[in-house]
Amino acid sequence: MDDTELTTRLQRLEDVMAITQLIASYGPLVDSGAADEVAAMWTEDGSYDVEGWLMENREAVRSMVLSRPHQRFIGSGSVHFMGTPHVTVDGDTAVAVCESLLVLREGDGFVVSRGGANRIELARTPEGWRFTRRVARTLDGSAEARALLHS
Amino acid sequence: MDDTELTTRLQRLEDVMAITQLIASYGPLVDSGAADEVAAMWTEDGSYDVEGWLMENREAVRSMVLSRPHQRFIGSGSVHFMGTPHVTVDGDTAVAVCESLLVLREGDGFVVSRGGANRIELARTPEGWRFTRRVARTLDGSAEARALLHS
Amino acid sequence: MDDTELTTRLQRLEDVMAITQLIASYGPLVDSGAADEVAAMWTEDGSYDVEGWLMENREAVRSMVLSRPHQRFIGSGSVHFMGTPHVTVDGDTAVAVCESLLVLREGDGFVVSRGGANRIELARTPEGWRFTRRVARTLDGSAEARALLHS
Repeated sequence: MDDTELTTRLQRLEDVMAITQLIASYGPLVDSGAADEVAAMWTEDGSYDVEGWLMENREAVRSMVLSRPHQRFIGSGSVHFMGTPHVTVDGDTAVAVCESLLVLREGDGFVVSRGGANRIELARTPEGWRFTRRVARTLDGSAEARALLHS
Repeated sequence: MDDTELTTRLQRLEDVMAITQLIASYGPLVDSGAADEVAAMWTEDGSYDVEGWLMENREAVRSMVLSRPHQRFIGSGSVHFMGTPHVTVDGDTAVAVCESLLVLREGDGFVVSRGGANRIELARTPEGWRFTRRVARTLDGSAEARALLHS
Repeated sequence: MDDTELTTRLQRLEDVMAITQLIASYGPLVDSGAADEVAAMWTEDGSYDVEGWLMENREAVRSMVLSRPHQRFIGSGSVHFMGTPHVTVDGDTAVAVCESLLVLREGDGFVVSRGGANRIELARTPEGWRFTRRVARTLDGSAEARALLHS
């Protein structure tokens, strides 16, 4: 195997693994309320569009974690459970698609409050892979939510 | 490290990652109703045996996605959530074992309709890894469902 | 690329993948009641601290799987669903953080009985990566549970 092929194969594995690991950190960080670390998953001007709530940079993502609704979730107990992403890398950008569950503590147990579709666009940056755009929609049968999963 | 050892190690990582990625694509594809793409996860004569519904080739899998029960699921909102598979590769075949949740929208929220055991046999093909056989059973305490997880 | 860099990069991928695979085997093994195999995920004196139940070696983990409460879970149908872990490797030790759901069959469907935070410490052993310490807490809003996710 020549050195170029080797580097290409190693790099592809590293990219998919790094993106998988980044996405795996979302739930633990957002459910522990680590606002700065959650924000740092995005690029400085990365966006997060979730059910009509459009955050357009890190500061907006940080504010979402600190917001009263999110603090109420984690104060009572929440699990933002992200599925294994399907990752497509194209040079220094990538697209990851996955489903997610929002599970909230209620009474003695937990309820699944939302099942979601996620399409995440990423860029390779000096800090590593970061989200440039995440769109999430509730899987409620709408064509829009389903299209996110098939992109 | 000699070239043979290197190739072996790289190949093993690539195989597990490719199989993990294939399985990660199942939920997004089946919940968006992408019948052709779901069918293409199997080999032409691959089988899917789920709770007494036996599909014996791609066309049967495709028909399942287009069937009224499945269309009702996705028309209302469904999440076929597959856990990270435990993968054992043996040359050009592999076995992946994982649990799964079927989460359906109901009223204002979602319910877990089924917790499942999955045993997936795969083959390396010119198109990449494909399912040759998937068996799924509800985890209802039966010895059969539990045996799938321990194979 | 020189041989040392290559080995380092391959090894890091293999470590994260091996740990991810080990954790992926937990649910299938514990839900099928494979007491010996579950116990063997830990080192001989590895510990598992879950909600005030402290197991301090393999034998204690094995006894937990064989215990009446666990057998009742799997006799009725349970899914110990582990999220993709975020893994940090440091030489021959590692830390993996993930969330988990305990889903139990109830009536015609399933309920989410618990959403959990997991912090797992591991060691590289001659048998492969093994748990030296796992701490799990219900995500009930407590600072302790949230701190596990942010460590």
